Amino acid sequence: MHAPPQAIDLLLTNAGEVATPIGRQARAGADLGRIDRIPGGAVAIDQERIVDVGPAAALAERYRPRQRFDCQGGLLLPGLIDAHTHAVFAGSREREFELRNQGASYAEIARSGGGILATVQRVRAASEEELTGGLLQRLDRFLEHGTTTIECKSGYGLSREGELKCLRAMAGAARQHPVELVPTFLGAHAYPPEFAGNRPAYVDLLCEQLLPEVASAGLARYADVFTEQIAFSLADSRRILERARGLGLGLRLHVEQLSAMGGAELAAELGAASADHLEHITPVGIEALARAGVQPVLCPLVPIYLREPQEAPGRRLVDAGLAPALSTDFNPGSCPLQSLPEVLTFAGLRYGYSAAEALTAATLNAAATLGRAAELGSLEPGKQADLVLFDHPNLEHLLYEFGRNAVRAVWKRGRLALQRTPFQAERRPLA
Amino acid sequence: MHAPPQAIDLLLTNAGEVATPIGRQARAGADLGRIDRIPGGAVAIDQERIVDVGPAAALAERYRPRQRFDCQGGLLLPGLIDAHTHAVFAGSREREFELRNQGASYAEIARSGGGILATVQRVRAASEEELTGGLLQRLDRFLEHGTTTIECKSGYGLSREGELKCLRAMAGAARQHPVELVPTFLGAHAYPPEFAGNRPAYVDLLCEQLLPEVASAGLARYADVFTEQIAFSLADSRRILERARGLGLGLRLHVEQLSAMGGAELAAELGAASADHLEHITPVGIEALARAGVQPVLCPLVPIYLREPQEAPGRRLVDAGLAPALSTDFNPGSCPLQSLPEVLTFAGLRYGYSAAEALTAATLNAAATLGRAAELGSLEPGKQADLVLFDHPNLEHLLYEFGRNAVRAVWKRGRLALQRTPFQAERRPLA
Repeated sequence: MHAPPQAIDLLLTNAGEVATPIGRQARAGADLGRIDRIPGGAVAIDQERIVDVGPAAALAERYRPRQRFDCQGGLLLPGLIDAHTHAVFAGSREREFELRNQGASYAEIARSGGGILATVQRVRAASEEELTGGLLQRLDRFLEHGTTTIECKSGYGLSREGELKCLRAMAGAARQHPVELVPTFLGAHAYPPEFAGNRPAYVDLLCEQLLPEVASAGLARYADVFTEQIAFSLADSRRILERARGLGLGLRLHVEQLSAMGGAELAAELGAASADHLEHITPVGIEALARAGVQPVLCPLVPIYLREPQEAPGRRLVDAGLAPALSTDFNPGSCPLQSLPEVLTFAGLRYGYSAAEALTAATLNAAATLGRAAELGSLEPGKQADLVLFDHPNLEHLLYEFGRNAVRAVWKRGRLALQRTPFQAERRPLA
Repeated sequence: MHAPPQAIDLLLTNAGEVATPIGRQARAGADLGRIDRIPGGAVAIDQERIVDVGPAAALAERYRPRQRFDCQGGLLLPGLIDAHTHAVFAGSREREFELRNQGASYAEIARSGGGILATVQRVRAASEEELTGGLLQRLDRFLEHGTTTIECKSGYGLSREGELKCLRAMAGAARQHPVELVPTFLGAHAYPPEFAGNRPAYVDLLCEQLLPEVASAGLARYADVFTEQIAFSLADSRRILERARGLGLGLRLHVEQLSAMGGAELAAELGAASADHLEHITPVGIEALARAGVQPVLCPLVPIYLREPQEAPGRRLVDAGLAPALSTDFNPGSCPLQSLPEVLTFAGLRYGYSAAEALTAATLNAAATLGRAAELGSLEPGKQADLVLFDHPNLEHLLYEFGRNAVRAVWKRGRLALQRTPFQAERRPLA
């Protein structure tokens, strides 16, 4: 006795493998690598939601889809989630790449007119429409590489007008584009040049004017601070973040990227949603994050791109029971990269993460650190139907092969947002 | 008084920048980075040849093209040339990636059934048609990433039938595909399992049977040997290579990749066309290559992918007056990568190569090490019209941005072989 098949909108079928983490909260420690894998799998979708996930044959019996998509043996995953990007900017900084490779330091590049402040100048000169247009193009590229949700920081305005313009550009782009965007206010990215002689006044501006305005306008869900020797001190970071928390914003921190200064402990103390970078985190810092349950957000390509010898202790963070997310840190200076698959490969190479661990970090754990794990980050009934199909036979293959965009299709909220046919050159007839 | 405009087949115009090395032989030392750059450039093409290169306005006056291609501000370069690939194979080895990341050594992976011999098994079981089909697909991907010519090695057959099958598959694919292929016989890639107890007999087979047969059939232009502790000794390498040279084949060597054993000196002594890898080359080896004018072929992603700490001394090789080529080393084990732009980025990061140096290494110098510099590797009147157009505003930007395929069009022998329109997601109308 079978129930009659249920009518649904869409059946994605004939995947070589469906792979997904499971759950509605971040996976930590040993659980990071526990995922569901279904060879020959399928996913049933109705409206914007996932209805069922299972073997293709079983789902073919259970559902009567209005539309059917043949995955042709590809790898079907939850849409990737990038939990740390600086995607609103203007201009590019390719000259710095060459300078840095010839040995110039961060400080030397800044003195030669490069660095964050170079982008600030371009952003201040750009209109909100220009920023929105540039961001929309970058959202296209995220989608092209399988990313369906990004966290996105302001931080290249560094003035009331500049920061609000960036946040409005995010909101404007998000309304038009399938990629979902979680906005973060990063007014404390650097000290703006006009406050060079009076840094406390900029912290005052952030705390007394900008944070309240951003929060009351609903322009950001999180506030972030670059806590570093060359940026904001621990004391200033604490002041800014406490103010943000008081206004109802969640907290994210750039910490221990270039030096160990106790930023991880601060993130733990404040109950931040994430502590990002962590190249120089100490054992004490790891313990603090673990006790507080703060999620690390790791960017394995950044020290490689900056030619910094120290990398985040990816394995030790997992061993300490933490629930890392992986991200590009996409920005125009220290990592002009939008491909999360490339990040997964390097998480394997540099942290020794298994394919399953890396997948969880770039889906469910990234969703969790953005407060969206109930909706996003895994393929489970009831969750939003965000999926990506890769031209790979299995999950390990996604990390193994690199330097190629193997995305074949992307669905956002149950709708096909991108589809790509593999390129084939015209063959010459054989004589 | 102007001459009337000359009729030509094709004008590529309105490039943001045309960049190319100049000359018909490899560029060494300080010359490596001397290239021509034409902002707002154009290239005139007739039949399969480049007729002229210059500012768009000047060429518009001089030529009357039957067809015109608008480069829309992109970066126009000579087609990239990959001077070291192992593109004929069957199967994939994604499990090894994970094993290696968890600390397994080369030897442990070989013992667990992985490594070169795993691919040999798959290749022996495959038909020539299957090998040709797989190679054609990989040639599509080279073309997609802007590569118009590759060197391609056998070396996964390791038997008379297996090696000849691989070489024939190359010839068959080359006849059908726009990407040009320079075949190399690498019977001395590893000792086949059936000769484990009698290695000298395999060297005999190579020297007395296979090399003569390959040479007389015209199936390879070069012979190559993997000279390494875990592969062929110096003495066996010398014997094989001298035999190959006597038969009229050019020589290429895998040397000093995992240990310093004097392979570079052997390459110099034999007057090889290239000495490849060189991670462990000594100052004496560098001097020997320089004296003999042997070109290094460098693969910056390979030690990264193998998690080997030692990398080739890219800068010192240039300082010694050598003329390096850059390559992917594309193969299913130690570097499943087909993108030369990714290699250029890492040549910047790891060797400190400027964008101009990296470009020369992946075009003119790669052509020279394959004996094709008179025809390929630069944009100059009379050379074959192989070009690639990137969605980058200038050459530095090509290295700076990474993890994205920015190829917009490729021409091979004056014919458009690939064209790609940038992806744009459907925008939601603004309420």
